[in-house]
Amino acid sequence: MFSGLSAFPLTPMNEDGIDTVAYAALVRRLADAGVDSIGALGSSGSYAYLSREERAQTARIAVENAGTVPVMIGIGALRTRDVLLLAEDAQKAGASAVLLAPVSYNKLSAEEVYSHFEAVTRNLSIPLCVYDNPGTTNFQFSDELHGRIAQLPNVRSIKIPGMPLDPQEAKARVDRLRALIPAHVSIGVSGDWFGAIGLNAGCEAWYSAWGGLFPRTLLEITRAAQRGDEQEASQLMERLRPLWDLVARQGGSLRVMAAAAELLGLAKSPCLPLPLKAIHGPDRAHLAELIESLELA
Amino acid sequence: MFSGLSAFPLTPMNEDGIDTVAYAALVRRLADAGVDSIGALGSSGSYAYLSREERAQTARIAVENAGTVPVMIGIGALRTRDVLLLAEDAQKAGASAVLLAPVSYNKLSAEEVYSHFEAVTRNLSIPLCVYDNPGTTNFQFSDELHGRIAQLPNVRSIKIPGMPLDPQEAKARVDRLRALIPAHVSIGVSGDWFGAIGLNAGCEAWYSAWGGLFPRTLLEITRAAQRGDEQEASQLMERLRPLWDLVARQGGSLRVMAAAAELLGLAKSPCLPLPLKAIHGPDRAHLAELIESLELA
Repeated sequence: MFSGLSAFPLTPMNEDGIDTVAYAALVRRLADAGVDSIGALGSSGSYAYLSREERAQTARIAVENAGTVPVMIGIGALRTRDVLLLAEDAQKAGASAVLLAPVSYNKLSAEEVYSHFEAVTRNLSIPLCVYDNPGTTNFQFSDELHGRIAQLPNVRSIKIPGMPLDPQEAKARVDRLRALIPAHVSIGVSGDWFGAIGLNAGCEAWYSAWGGLFPRTLLEITRAAQRGDEQEASQLMERLRPLWDLVARQGGSLRVMAAAAELLGLAKSPCLPLPLKAIHGPDRAHLAELIESLELA
Repeated sequence: MFSGLSAFPLTPMNEDGIDTVAYAALVRRLADAGVDSIGALGSSGSYAYLSREERAQTARIAVENAGTVPVMIGIGALRTRDVLLLAEDAQKAGASAVLLAPVSYNKLSAEEVYSHFEAVTRNLSIPLCVYDNPGTTNFQFSDELHGRIAQLPNVRSIKIPGMPLDPQEAKARVDRLRALIPAHVSIGVSGDWFGAIGLNAGCEAWYSAWGGLFPRTLLEITRAAQRGDEQEASQLMERLRPLWDLVARQGGSLRVMAAAAELLGLAKSPCLPLPLKAIHGPDRAHLAELIESLELA
């Protein structure tokens, strides 16, 4: 399950709770589109903002609505104690895998991160994907640490945050990491604008926020890269450049995706947990135009 | 209560829960030493790692054991929803004030942070101290934003993270912020090695982690600065240089303070929530020597 397009849906919510109906529909939409896996409760799914009970409920809804598509559940939390409980909940919900980021308040040391993954993987009976996201965790993995963690039991994939934009340099970066991790551990690219670059550079998976909202568009890119048509994948990616530019200007996908889901009627407004706010004003109007002109709907 | 030495004790804990006996004793120790206020559940108190129930319990113990010393309670959380509940709990526990940092997973915008503080201050009936700590929140306050938030109801102090080491530049920095905030809002310096510099530069308060462990030593520095003896304050501060150097090498106070509390028998080992670990090995041995040579015990 750690190859191809892994789609990370939003978890629509407001101050009163999760919109379980909208969430179930988002998940079914991904299964219908034929994504290779679903990443429930990733960063796009606002996992860090939910209570343990809300996360267990969300995990159950994701598994129930994913059909035959395997579901990976985010179990990141500040404390090892809480991650162990969330791992239990995810397994009870029927998850096929879990995703773990070294979430921090106090910046973590490499030794602390290693011990954290060691404690969690020791208690798992399903595969784990290492979630490397320095923008939200404030922790920078070294390749050496990735190599050590990748050898722990149950580790099957690494979700990396991005890479150089130059194709040669991107390939060199993936090769460097590949040389340090076992063959049974896949590498997946995240940061959506790196999608085609990452797949073309040898990443087996694309862990994609926008795949959670526009699965057909991103599957087309994924399939082109998977059959070795690097140029087609790059061109399809380049067509979406105005969207990636908007995301870059907003400092990330979440607030833009939330607005897109609201514009498309896939989530009620607001759908993010305060203090987070979907983009509004001229940026939102521009997004509405892009959804139309890029035929994303 | 937003002047002088505000001491931020550890909340000793392990994977099973909070060591309430050790915590109560730490708080009583601060009250006996005569600190000007107690910052319970600050970063030193690992607030972000505790459940709502644990935080309410800790707040109650702090207030019960602080005697006549006013207690400020940290109410930071990722969601506005949760901060509002934590504010209620703190007020029910008898807190004299609350401390709020814009905790983040997704990096926050200035607009989001302002709305967050607006929602929380609107619902408060006790004073609030704005907690500016970019190292843990990944949010950088501008002075302009501090100025806007300082005008919200109930805001009475700003805890700033540090300042230039040069006395002239430090004074200029405090003056710049002072010019943008109302007179009834005090400025307090944090980052312990800036203590004397900040007080000498015109900060009214020292929000101090190490004040939570070595209150008498840090009160001596505070009192010297408060009576205008800048040189005495600086010299007393300089005497502790080997401690500040150790803290800087460790990337912050928490893991060093935890080891010091363990070494002094004020907390059982371990006393931090995993994956955090107190310093160990040669660093810990060096710390033990410093506690003796600097007569900190």
